[in-house]
Amino acid sequence: MAHIDHLGLAVKSIAQARRFYESLGLVVAHEEEVQQEGVRTAMLPLGDSRIELLEPLAEDTPVGRFLARHGEGLHHVAIHVEDISATFDEMKRSGVKLASPAIQTGAGGHLYFFVHPASASGALVEICQDPPAHA
Amino acid sequence: MAHIDHLGLAVKSIAQARRFYESLGLVVAHEEEVQQEGVRTAMLPLGDSRIELLEPLAEDTPVGRFLARHGEGLHHVAIHVEDISATFDEMKRSGVKLASPAIQTGAGGHLYFFVHPASASGALVEICQDPPAHA
Repeated sequence: MAHIDHLGLAVKSIAQARRFYESLGLVVAHEEEVQQEGVRTAMLPLGDSRIELLEPLAEDTPVGRFLARHGEGLHHVAIHVEDISATFDEMKRSGVKLASPAIQTGAGGHLYFFVHPASASGALVEICQDPPAHA
Repeated sequence: MAHIDHLGLAVKSIAQARRFYESLGLVVAHEEEVQQEGVRTAMLPLGDSRIELLEPLAEDTPVGRFLARHGEGLHHVAIHVEDISATFDEMKRSGVKLASPAIQTGAGGHLYFFVHPASASGALVEICQDPPAHA
């Protein structure tokens, strides 16, 4: 079923930012460096979703440039769908502007692509799906 | 249980913005004018959360000023808690900067307050709770 997979927040320091969410009872369940995105991430589960703290590995990365332009804050929302291929094809067909040239494979095997904010009322929207099951 | 109650997006036009989310299969379940916030809202359920589209009723409103400064995009995240009074008191005690002077009552009877972005790594965070049950 579709749900908010995670909400990404651009932060200067995960060590600093996590304190506020930990004070609300959230727990960092997973930390990871994603080299292909130039970012360190910390995931804090919250209901059927997660807060994702994003700390850039360098200034010249997507999140580093976001921080330079906008400062810290809400960065993107990831929506989990059941059939990412069908969603990708339908968006291309209907003229939605995409920020990913194709469906990408993440470190954990999950699939994702980004919709350009111009096609989603200014929000950076990620569409994602769990790793495909293999028999 | 704590979960993301909703994710608020500032938009110029709900009529225009809803199309992208409807193309993902989401449905507008509720529309409302909230005079005390100077905003028209449309709620689209998504898992245990909701996307909230926020269209200002005038330029001189919080969302109107947000649009003038930042343009359309992610505006705030609302986190649902079980005991909003305890959360409010604990935040005041620990020096979290709040953007609401006290717990507010919304149109549907739900309770909410805003944390100042300075205390939440740049994100505007709303803390909310369902209407109190009365016997």
